[in-house]
Amino acid sequence: MRFLKGHGTGNDFVVLPDPDGALTLTPELAAALCDRRFGIGADGVLRVVRSESGDGWFMDYRNADGSLAEMCGNGARVFARFLVDHGYVDTASFTFGTRDGVTEARVGPADVAVSMRRPRIHGRGSARLGTLTVEGDAVDVGNPHLVCRVPDVSEIDLREPPGYDPAQFPAGVNVEVMSGDAGGGRMRVYERGSGETLSCGTGACAVAAVLLDGGTGTVPVDVPGGRVTVTIEAGRCWLAGPAVLVAEGTWLLDEVPALRLL
Amino acid sequence: MRFLKGHGTGNDFVVLPDPDGALTLTPELAAALCDRRFGIGADGVLRVVRSESGDGWFMDYRNADGSLAEMCGNGARVFARFLVDHGYVDTASFTFGTRDGVTEARVGPADVAVSMRRPRIHGRGSARLGTLTVEGDAVDVGNPHLVCRVPDVSEIDLREPPGYDPAQFPAGVNVEVMSGDAGGGRMRVYERGSGETLSCGTGACAVAAVLLDGGTGTVPVDVPGGRVTVTIEAGRCWLAGPAVLVAEGTWLLDEVPALRLL
Repeated sequence: MRFLKGHGTGNDFVVLPDPDGALTLTPELAAALCDRRFGIGADGVLRVVRSESGDGWFMDYRNADGSLAEMCGNGARVFARFLVDHGYVDTASFTFGTRDGVTEARVGPADVAVSMRRPRIHGRGSARLGTLTVEGDAVDVGNPHLVCRVPDVSEIDLREPPGYDPAQFPAGVNVEVMSGDAGGGRMRVYERGSGETLSCGTGACAVAAVLLDGGTGTVPVDVPGGRVTVTIEAGRCWLAGPAVLVAEGTWLLDEVPALRLL
Repeated sequence: MRFLKGHGTGNDFVVLPDPDGALTLTPELAAALCDRRFGIGADGVLRVVRSESGDGWFMDYRNADGSLAEMCGNGARVFARFLVDHGYVDTASFTFGTRDGVTEARVGPADVAVSMRRPRIHGRGSARLGTLTVEGDAVDVGNPHLVCRVPDVSEIDLREPPGYDPAQFPAGVNVEVMSGDAGGGRMRVYERGSGETLSCGTGACAVAAVLLDGGTGTVPVDVPGGRVTVTIEAGRCWLAGPAVLVAEGTWLLDEVPALRLL
């Protein structure tokens, strides 16, 4: 089984080219590939398969724990990078399918931009981070976010899962701490189920919506793994930034190893 | 640049086949390859290069941070697995060079054993783990260990660096918490400079020395990443257990990327 490894601002993925749909990406296989010690290691897997209509590509994405997710902004950027660099598409601007619908991509030499849902600010909430309680804006980007303004993002303790109001966020919430304004922002994120990560595409879009005070415009957002630029339009949002393929190879195991739980 | 990725009980390595010594493994390259988000990801790099005498192989090992280490027991087991599986040696029992001298290897279908220094118990000491103070045996395996018996290894908090007496351990110390007897033991380890890891070869040898009360014999040691078996002889020690190659491929970046510090 052939694979590539790549990342978008430190959010990393195993890419599985499977044009003919010969591969079954089970939760167990995804988890084995993404295991950072016993496997290759990644935040998620992107299987590249022809769309059902046959005239394009579909991003079959799974999280590192094997679960399905509808959308992954940085994953979509790495997916688009792969399609261009490996000749699966022959234009720099194209669309592909995801479980959250059709995404548009624009691939440049360094940066890759993908279209996302426009974030919707819908209320206020609070989270407990270590010994600190912070307040913020609840933002829906297809998944739930709480964007909390703080004086200095580098001083916040994100080692433990944030406390939040389960009545307001029954399916959990991704918590961003951020600073800045419409000229640019900084953020760190605690991702629901994953812990602190180097980058979160939907989180950057949620933060941009708050930086732009619910309006439209373009704003750079610094994440621990680099810089993305978010453009919010009337009906959608663009997430742009570097996307890099760093390795290409073959998975050597015939079987999916039984993972040891720690 | 060609690479493989493998692990021994969850201690994982990037293997760089370099028979003709064409490659310069700089600290920067090692760190870039081992970066778990921006690179391939591993605990260390094993460059496979012909020994200076020309009749064998030398293990050029670097830690994930690019620093040199004299010996790495699980790394040596993965190195030996590579030599056999890829036809670099044609016997199951052979020797190879390391910075700590010549190591002997015995490679079976599942397990790989390598010879190590015999651990030397040389005193008592104590460490602070979270809110707990534990006492243990100071053990030298070429690197310093403190092996602390506890009622239940699974209940110990190893998230923060242990506190220790810097007068006793001027170069720092690897702290093991363990339980068991000469029939078998369990351990977890906080590695100096790395944090808690799934396995530590010299640590397992140090724990075995304590389980065998300073004598000779064979004892299985369960680590979070699996099981190793340690045999202590009069003049040396054997570390045996699974060693697996999981992926093979090509590093795609021309340059060593500048790593972002978090």
